[in-house]
Amino acid sequence: MDELLEQILRECAPYTKEGALANYIPELAKADPNDFGIFIMSSDGRTNRTGDCHKPFTIQSIVKPILLLQALMDNGIEEVRRHVGVEATGKPFDAINYSDQSLLSDHLNPMVNMGAICMCTLIKGDTYQEKFERLLQLTRRLAGNDSICLNETVYRSEKATGSKNRALAYLLKTYGMIRDDVEEVLDCYFRACSIQVCCADLARIGFVLANHGRLPISGERVFPSEYASYVNAILMTCGMYDGSGEFAVKVGVPAKSGVGGGIMAVVPTRMGIGIYSPALDGKGNSVAGIKALETLSQRLYLSIF
Amino acid sequence: MDELLEQILRECAPYTKEGALANYIPELAKADPNDFGIFIMSSDGRTNRTGDCHKPFTIQSIVKPILLLQALMDNGIEEVRRHVGVEATGKPFDAINYSDQSLLSDHLNPMVNMGAICMCTLIKGDTYQEKFERLLQLTRRLAGNDSICLNETVYRSEKATGSKNRALAYLLKTYGMIRDDVEEVLDCYFRACSIQVCCADLARIGFVLANHGRLPISGERVFPSEYASYVNAILMTCGMYDGSGEFAVKVGVPAKSGVGGGIMAVVPTRMGIGIYSPALDGKGNSVAGIKALETLSQRLYLSIF
Amino acid sequence: MDELLEQILRECAPYTKEGALANYIPELAKADPNDFGIFIMSSDGRTNRTGDCHKPFTIQSIVKPILLLQALMDNGIEEVRRHVGVEATGKPFDAINYSDQSLLSDHLNPMVNMGAICMCTLIKGDTYQEKFERLLQLTRRLAGNDSICLNETVYRSEKATGSKNRALAYLLKTYGMIRDDVEEVLDCYFRACSIQVCCADLARIGFVLANHGRLPISGERVFPSEYASYVNAILMTCGMYDGSGEFAVKVGVPAKSGVGGGIMAVVPTRMGIGIYSPALDGKGNSVAGIKALETLSQRLYLSIF
Amino acid sequence: MDELLEQILRECAPYTKEGALANYIPELAKADPNDFGIFIMSSDGRTNRTGDCHKPFTIQSIVKPILLLQALMDNGIEEVRRHVGVEATGKPFDAINYSDQSLLSDHLNPMVNMGAICMCTLIKGDTYQEKFERLLQLTRRLAGNDSICLNETVYRSEKATGSKNRALAYLLKTYGMIRDDVEEVLDCYFRACSIQVCCADLARIGFVLANHGRLPISGERVFPSEYASYVNAILMTCGMYDGSGEFAVKVGVPAKSGVGGGIMAVVPTRMGIGIYSPALDGKGNSVAGIKALETLSQRLYLSIF
Repeated sequence: MDELLEQILRECAPYTKEGALANYIPELAKADPNDFGIFIMSSDGRTNRTGDCHKPFTIQSIVKPILLLQALMDNGIEEVRRHVGVEATGKPFDAINYSDQSLLSDHLNPMVNMGAICMCTLIKGDTYQEKFERLLQLTRRLAGNDSICLNETVYRSEKATGSKNRALAYLLKTYGMIRDDVEEVLDCYFRACSIQVCCADLARIGFVLANHGRLPISGERVFPSEYASYVNAILMTCGMYDGSGEFAVKVGVPAKSGVGGGIMAVVPTRMGIGIYSPALDGKGNSVAGIKALETLSQRLYLSIF
Repeated sequence: MDELLEQILRECAPYTKEGALANYIPELAKADPNDFGIFIMSSDGRTNRTGDCHKPFTIQSIVKPILLLQALMDNGIEEVRRHVGVEATGKPFDAINYSDQSLLSDHLNPMVNMGAICMCTLIKGDTYQEKFERLLQLTRRLAGNDSICLNETVYRSEKATGSKNRALAYLLKTYGMIRDDVEEVLDCYFRACSIQVCCADLARIGFVLANHGRLPISGERVFPSEYASYVNAILMTCGMYDGSGEFAVKVGVPAKSGVGGGIMAVVPTRMGIGIYSPALDGKGNSVAGIKALETLSQRLYLSIF
Repeated sequence: MDELLEQILRECAPYTKEGALANYIPELAKADPNDFGIFIMSSDGRTNRTGDCHKPFTIQSIVKPILLLQALMDNGIEEVRRHVGVEATGKPFDAINYSDQSLLSDHLNPMVNMGAICMCTLIKGDTYQEKFERLLQLTRRLAGNDSICLNETVYRSEKATGSKNRALAYLLKTYGMIRDDVEEVLDCYFRACSIQVCCADLARIGFVLANHGRLPISGERVFPSEYASYVNAILMTCGMYDGSGEFAVKVGVPAKSGVGGGIMAVVPTRMGIGIYSPALDGKGNSVAGIKALETLSQRLYLSIF
Repeated sequence: MDELLEQILRECAPYTKEGALANYIPELAKADPNDFGIFIMSSDGRTNRTGDCHKPFTIQSIVKPILLLQALMDNGIEEVRRHVGVEATGKPFDAINYSDQSLLSDHLNPMVNMGAICMCTLIKGDTYQEKFERLLQLTRRLAGNDSICLNETVYRSEKATGSKNRALAYLLKTYGMIRDDVEEVLDCYFRACSIQVCCADLARIGFVLANHGRLPISGERVFPSEYASYVNAILMTCGMYDGSGEFAVKVGVPAKSGVGGGIMAVVPTRMGIGIYSPALDGKGNSVAGIKALETLSQRLYLSIF
């Protein structure tokens, strides 16, 4: 298996040249486009790794399934579903999902920015500082890594330049889908996106989703099995932005990408996979990361279809 | 198992009252809203059934995955992909998927009408009569039922009243996505939608998709395994119209519904399921059919997530 | 005045190089891009002309105000208003004016294709042949030119290649805004667009609109004054396709352009102007024609604002 | 004339019952729905009035033409045109004018909120306080009323509840159409909308636009004639929100309405009209105000078409 991973790394490394670093916030553009790492956590307890699999990067949109999990753990499926829909939008992740002067929960899902911003408001906590702390704790617990923390520089960069997310949040406010102070909600969202992780962390988080909510080795349950199915189903239909359909036919497992260059893949009952390669395609997905998952899926028959 | 099916039929029968018969063509409105049948074909060769599982109805949109299969068998994945995209559109099945005066393959997928009309043009055959005959033969072979044929009355009704589909097809023509005569292509599409099937047929077709392209019992291969994965992945993300996300979280298996009242579900490696109950929800899906699949999924742990 | 016109022709002739011939139907691409003519009919009964002002071309969209007039004369303002709205759509003339799976009269106006196709159905007549004949008679009467007739070649070309208009018309049918046979309605519309006119004809038709519905010289009333105001108001807000706002600030009079290269301008109480120059800008308006009207408006203080 | 106005007031007063007070900010909902006033300033120097024509109300969107004038006076037509388009959008005034993840000047015009917010940034001044002061001075000068000032309560209410405008402004920021601090720009815009005027003020401002930029009586020029034509043309095509087309056919003069209940109408070369009646139709226009203008237009032949 380690050999297979190394071979895939070699085969897919050239694809890092085909993408471009995210430039919507200055900090992300400072990444090294040649970085490439893969980490796999399997249900038999073994881990496999290759390349830059401990290099830190910001989680960005991969925090969306964790935000959703925290919202589900704090409110249950029905209450979350009342606030945010589950249908693919057919549009980019930061699109203004809105039609004919109306904004309904059906216009959103938890994997697009508008839906994820809503999720922040559903986390329990007296303050948005407390909500964020709970999210961070959940992330650490899922990843089995207490040292996970905020990348302050990226957080400040996001906060200073996030006009589009501000536009989305004020629109949510307009239609009553955010009741709290918009800047506080956004602050929590920008912090959430700036949590710093590595491939190993993503693989372990993905594993818990693949393992129906139980941690590896200890088997300790973090959340009910039905929340895992709920999150995985949404990752399958909406996890790879507006490239989710292509990913479903080519790789065939639930996954979530982030513009930081990470991808977390969930192979139900079998494994969690974390990949890092920051050169992105036009839809915001890691080019070499997707290629590596395609190859892995073919070689290890990962597709659930 | 038969007992379970009967129990589900009893439990879900009240939901037949919550939907309405399709009325966009007069013929469909003549169905009996109380009809309700379930048929399951399992990988161990056993079949289970209950209710009106041999009652005939028109296949409608459930022909879309068969159209896609025929197009794949005649052209391969790459060529089909060049003509039609794979992303969920975020819109109803008969929407005009088109933006800013342009129409690109990315605006379509094979499960919305515009994409399915395109599929007709990709089937091999000198005439559209021949293309349709090949599609009908494939349907019969997948279902193991040589008596499957066209419902002439529904076909004529579709053809006489299909203005929306005509609008969609002429738009495809405008943007070069149909090269042949529009009326001939539409005739093939209307015939395809008017193929008459029953639950047992759908269960067997679904089974071949679940069984990676092999017929039940004989194990004879009809199409390559990768075409099954391709079709199943698209069914998962787009099969239940703009209710696909909801279906993914609640049922968790690839499936296709039709406004005739049928649903074909594919439980990869395990089973094919055919359901019939013609009272539809606002998105065009059988109300009791979805409810039955939800219950089946919970009781038999069918979700692939 | 003749001198002024000649000077404007010289000054604006270079702009004929900046546009391109319409190519959406093959016949239109055969025009001579250097043709350029201006004809003015003034309220004191004088006419002025320069350049190719008797060269024939097809009326195309300039028939839309005549279609609207005929519909008004046959049904009155209220009935016409019930079928078609009066707001600018913010979109190109052949756009699919439709939102969220619904099509309402408010999505249309009589100057976009969908609205103009509707107008055909409102003309009185037992057959569409008769409806068209009445429209042709009105055109001849307004222009004071009994020799105006159909350009058969353009008509056949339009009919053979008009997929986009077919798409629009079938959409109108879908939503009950056309009740008659779509192909018959379209045939009338294609004929209407293929009426052959010259600058002099357009100037005289424009004059009747400027003159509150009365013919020049005789002063004979063809239609009530309020229909002239109705048509002129719509020409002002929607007459120059999605360039109407630009035209309003730069020229400031009601006008209608056609992809055949003609422009008819209406200077209320003062004059009708016909211009021909077939090289079009990206919005379908004659480049040199608009430039000539801008210059004319500045020199003769034509703007009504 | 005074008699005519009184008669119109009587005839149209019942229409005040057909609308509803603006409720998007709490302060506006406190208006008296029975208030109704008309003020006319004619080119012969005479004024006519009836009803509550000195009752103060906030200018709201009627400040948009003044914002445009100030931007034109400070930058010229070309520079303003580079920032904001002139086409009707086909959408409500507070719509998100944006398509396919892009925002271009062509998506805006100065009469929709996004365009008007842009205008604020084009006013000369070192600070936004100074920019607002200059706008207020221009308003006072046009109205010949130095006592015009800000309604502080409405301003604070707008500022506290203006989520939709914040969303629009942050979207402008995202696409580089606002370069300054968004909150400062918005503060200026909210102040602009909260300027308190009466019918007499609006009639005098409208008169200057009708009089090609010259003040009444003194004939002093405030701005060039071409700016008047520019503003009037845009009022004609976009001034009455997405009811501009209807207003053009029914009344036929440039006008601007505000959700405060005011309408300013410009009858080129003849008169300025100010109307106040705060019960609005669904598009945000004063119901009785439009009715009064329709009647006035018919009786006095005001339509420019």
